[in-house]
Amino acid sequence: MRDFSTDHRWLSINTATVRAQWKLDRIIQECARRGIRAISPWRDQVAAVGLDRIAKLLRETGIELSGYCRGGMFPASTAEGRKTAIDDNRRAIDEAKTLEAPCLVLVVGGLPGALQGQLESKDIRAARADVQDGIGAILDHAKSVGMPLAIEPLHPMYAADRACVNTMAHANALCDELGSGLGIAVDAYHVWWDPDLEREIERAGGSSPSRLFAYHICDWLVPTTDLLTDRGMMGDGVIDLPMLRAWMERAGFRGMHEVEIFSANNWWKRDPDEVLMTVKARHREAS
Amino acid sequence: MRDFSTDHRWLSINTATVRAQWKLDRIIQECARRGIRAISPWRDQVAAVGLDRIAKLLRETGIELSGYCRGGMFPASTAEGRKTAIDDNRRAIDEAKTLEAPCLVLVVGGLPGALQGQLESKDIRAARADVQDGIGAILDHAKSVGMPLAIEPLHPMYAADRACVNTMAHANALCDELGSGLGIAVDAYHVWWDPDLEREIERAGGSSPSRLFAYHICDWLVPTTDLLTDRGMMGDGVIDLPMLRAWMERAGFRGMHEVEIFSANNWWKRDPDEVLMTVKARHREAS
Repeated sequence: MRDFSTDHRWLSINTATVRAQWKLDRIIQECARRGIRAISPWRDQVAAVGLDRIAKLLRETGIELSGYCRGGMFPASTAEGRKTAIDDNRRAIDEAKTLEAPCLVLVVGGLPGALQGQLESKDIRAARADVQDGIGAILDHAKSVGMPLAIEPLHPMYAADRACVNTMAHANALCDELGSGLGIAVDAYHVWWDPDLEREIERAGGSSPSRLFAYHICDWLVPTTDLLTDRGMMGDGVIDLPMLRAWMERAGFRGMHEVEIFSANNWWKRDPDEVLMTVKARHREAS
Repeated sequence: MRDFSTDHRWLSINTATVRAQWKLDRIIQECARRGIRAISPWRDQVAAVGLDRIAKLLRETGIELSGYCRGGMFPASTAEGRKTAIDDNRRAIDEAKTLEAPCLVLVVGGLPGALQGQLESKDIRAARADVQDGIGAILDHAKSVGMPLAIEPLHPMYAADRACVNTMAHANALCDELGSGLGIAVDAYHVWWDPDLEREIERAGGSSPSRLFAYHICDWLVPTTDLLTDRGMMGDGVIDLPMLRAWMERAGFRGMHEVEIFSANNWWKRDPDEVLMTVKARHREAS
């Protein structure tokens, strides 16, 4: 077991965690100042500052990426909609490459129109087929530029509007089907409840090469007051994070621990200094 | 396929659907008046009127039960806590028998103390073991009085505080392990997202005897604004209910369609006449 008590070598900040307080250039500078060596930024945050400016800032500060958020959103009810999604994913792959990300995270999408409040289909099997086809359509480009794609299974409560891949088993099956260049982003918040989790992490890590491309952490609060923006700081909820980390490490994972906390009424309202200080402490003590 | 356009023979009202408006004796009378021939009442609603009075009312009106809500809540961090749960489940079995319910629905419980806001353990595997042991401990009594037990897999968003059995596969595995007298309550709201759903319904129905003890319906809204009390009326959400019903029927299910809608800000605030009228119409048109 690595010793997390003395350094933060394995800590990465998903930049959604302080997105309410700071723009991305500031987040990078503040992480550098605190010895946090990695982040995972979102496309809209990058666009707000400028891709080249962010790439330059990363080089200057030595901050690495643990992933790039995000591609996906493949299902659509028309061929044109599916093509638009594929084109957008190709651009996301290129951006990820410019930023030297180790992977592009895929939030695969749900039922067409659901997220926009204009449901176009209730056929979740068709949506899942669109996801497989969509990943298949971008995988060659991703491999040609050397950008691994990481499917992030989302909690089943997002099956309708954000991602119809909701288990590690489903993500592993897609990797079986589509082959190399594709792996999984394991987010504790989304998968902690799964009775097959340990086995499916082993399956992903035991593949050759390993499919364990990313590991995201935060905590599940009881009660959870909002489906999207009430995630907890590590240690404040019910997830046995040290056990999950042990499973990841036993399966060979040696990557970053990316802290991703959406928290409209708590952490997004606090002083970002306090947020990052707490993240560092809880990463050490409670994950 | 049965014809639902001409009668409501297969409609049952889970009495939580109008619990904010009417007490249970009134619900029974109102259902009888409308030709709704079945309900599924909750223990607290029965207790509020009196078990014997409800049993008498059911006989007088000819209203049947499609299930009795509910037993379960097995996990505890002490032997005393686990025994208390088992004793309470035995009483629930006896009440279900008095009311001539076709099954006692089990909401199995989550992490000890989580629902009470006093988390005592993060060990979900231990909670799952408590569930298996707890059901095992009451099954003989249930069989001796002839009361089938129906495990209700709850949506994974309730894994921490309400039920750590969250998939049909897990419920089927418990049935495999514990044997006859045990089956499953399939609730569309909880399981609609599951990529293995069709297969696991087939597995449950194909067992001898069938494990398909109950079928609950409502709809998943996008957005869902509350984890517990924002369920939708059939047709207002994203679930392909006709497809689920077809899977149930193909697997041999011939029981009631129990409508169970928790809706603090919508249906619980409406005139219960309108709620039941809408339930009847949507049962016919959208499920």
